[in-house]
Amino acid sequence: MEVAVIGLGRMGGNMARRLLSKGHRVVVWNRSPGPLEALEKEGAEPARSFDEVVERLEPPRVAWLMLPAGEVTSHAVEEFARRLHPGDVLVNGANSYYRDSMAYAERLHPRGIGFADVGVSGGIWGREYGYGLMAGGSDEVIAHLRPLLEALAPAPDRGWVHAGPVGAGHYAKMVHNAIEYALMQAYAEGFELLRRKEFDIDLAAVAEAWRHGTVIRSWLLDLIAAELRSDPRLSGVAPVVADSGEGRWAAHEAIDLGVAAPLLALALHERFKSQDATHYPYRVLAVLRRAFGGHAVAVRDATDPAQQEHQGQERA
Amino acid sequence: MEVAVIGLGRMGGNMARRLLSKGHRVVVWNRSPGPLEALEKEGAEPARSFDEVVERLEPPRVAWLMLPAGEVTSHAVEEFARRLHPGDVLVNGANSYYRDSMAYAERLHPRGIGFADVGVSGGIWGREYGYGLMAGGSDEVIAHLRPLLEALAPAPDRGWVHAGPVGAGHYAKMVHNAIEYALMQAYAEGFELLRRKEFDIDLAAVAEAWRHGTVIRSWLLDLIAAELRSDPRLSGVAPVVADSGEGRWAAHEAIDLGVAAPLLALALHERFKSQDATHYPYRVLAVLRRAFGGHAVAVRDATDPAQQEHQGQERA
Repeated sequence: MEVAVIGLGRMGGNMARRLLSKGHRVVVWNRSPGPLEALEKEGAEPARSFDEVVERLEPPRVAWLMLPAGEVTSHAVEEFARRLHPGDVLVNGANSYYRDSMAYAERLHPRGIGFADVGVSGGIWGREYGYGLMAGGSDEVIAHLRPLLEALAPAPDRGWVHAGPVGAGHYAKMVHNAIEYALMQAYAEGFELLRRKEFDIDLAAVAEAWRHGTVIRSWLLDLIAAELRSDPRLSGVAPVVADSGEGRWAAHEAIDLGVAAPLLALALHERFKSQDATHYPYRVLAVLRRAFGGHAVAVRDATDPAQQEHQGQERA
Repeated sequence: MEVAVIGLGRMGGNMARRLLSKGHRVVVWNRSPGPLEALEKEGAEPARSFDEVVERLEPPRVAWLMLPAGEVTSHAVEEFARRLHPGDVLVNGANSYYRDSMAYAERLHPRGIGFADVGVSGGIWGREYGYGLMAGGSDEVIAHLRPLLEALAPAPDRGWVHAGPVGAGHYAKMVHNAIEYALMQAYAEGFELLRRKEFDIDLAAVAEAWRHGTVIRSWLLDLIAAELRSDPRLSGVAPVVADSGEGRWAAHEAIDLGVAAPLLALALHERFKSQDATHYPYRVLAVLRRAFGGHAVAVRDATDPAQQEHQGQERA
């Protein structure tokens, strides 16, 4: 079938390539021309404007957004709401807050334009191995998108799910990412327990062995083993972990639903701590110990860049 | 080569079978005769006593203990310390506290008997797919055990590691299990966030889809998908999660080393909470709210078995 991929970043560009490789006709749009020209060489049809996107597709059209969440995506939804026709479908495939996706569907519904929110996992490996996809939308819309979902997934019958109505796709992706944060933190704490023990344990060798036959084998562990093999000290890596929205949305959601999710929340807060170079709370504790017990307080080294007064929050 | 497997429980029995299938000569001992007779039919040589174990093996002997941790294992180490000869090797392959294994090595060293502690992961699936193995001991002892480690692992060059000196094998296994607790808890919280949302999400379908192409795919997720497929409500399962020692040892170790491992510790405490049917802390909170704010306190239903006064701690 045919589809327009709107936004050719790391995810969108590779998804367009995978769709092309599976024989679909792919129209592409991107804000900057570089990725557009690259995809044209690989067989996609570039569109210079949203008008051209709509012109180039046969109805019923499918336009698949892979744009940054928030303002950029909202703007594109508005533009396509004006241009698409009844029976067409707009897909939001970028990570977005599920309530935003529900609002987009509301915006499009009176115009007879279908909507699906599709959470996409797999990162830079998805082009080759396929993506994990969680789709929210009506049965009719998801049936229409099915050839695209089957092409993007690792196999037609594997790795994609119609999770529920509009919103359920991004909701499931939000939970997926919150789980991801906690899984990563669990491994990180475990490797630190190995590293700090006097046994001089070969972390890379243990990680590699754990990949096979153990209860904790996983794709994340595969990545850890590869990283530790190249540099077990991780010496060139700053200890700052970004968070990209889903973890925060999941923590909010746990509160709204009254669902206990202590590890998911704590993994998020561990990232916040890594983002704070001022370490102000520890200073509070140190001065309180001095105040009530006369305990010594170490003096701050103003030349140490790790102790800079403030560090902007990095977001990925 | 040849080896004696001492203790034919779920782990020991299947490990003996895997060793037999790989062409090793296996002498077996068990406290009760049933498993002994079963293994004899499958090609193992039963020994009725520790004396007979030693008689049946050619030096240098390898006796591989797969007994319950603590008193039973300590007793067997003592018995074999008296019976084995210089150059023989005793292996502790059951989950044990790594400090106990270090003490066993100390006990055997003056008699010239080698020792290795081998953490074994893989549960009931290991017989077919191989076990993950973490070995602690001298280079000489591990070299001697190598054919056995290669046979038990998923492949000769995969899934086993010489983690370090005596103690490092069980230490690595302890950390492995602590990570396992936190991984499990992360998935559990995530599925609860899915279940409690009004989207009526098909948990089994999402779990199955997540197995392919996503960042959180893992062997534990494979198991979750299989369980949810057969009963997504898990209605016949009591919400009580046992813990089997390693999680506690890891939490102790984090304290002794001064290593922050908040998710590993919290996953353990979540299990403790599941084991406490009295829910006493919540009662404390409820009466305090009544005391300072006049808030209502729900009355305990004495006929509800879930609210029984006390429940013994289940251990697995």
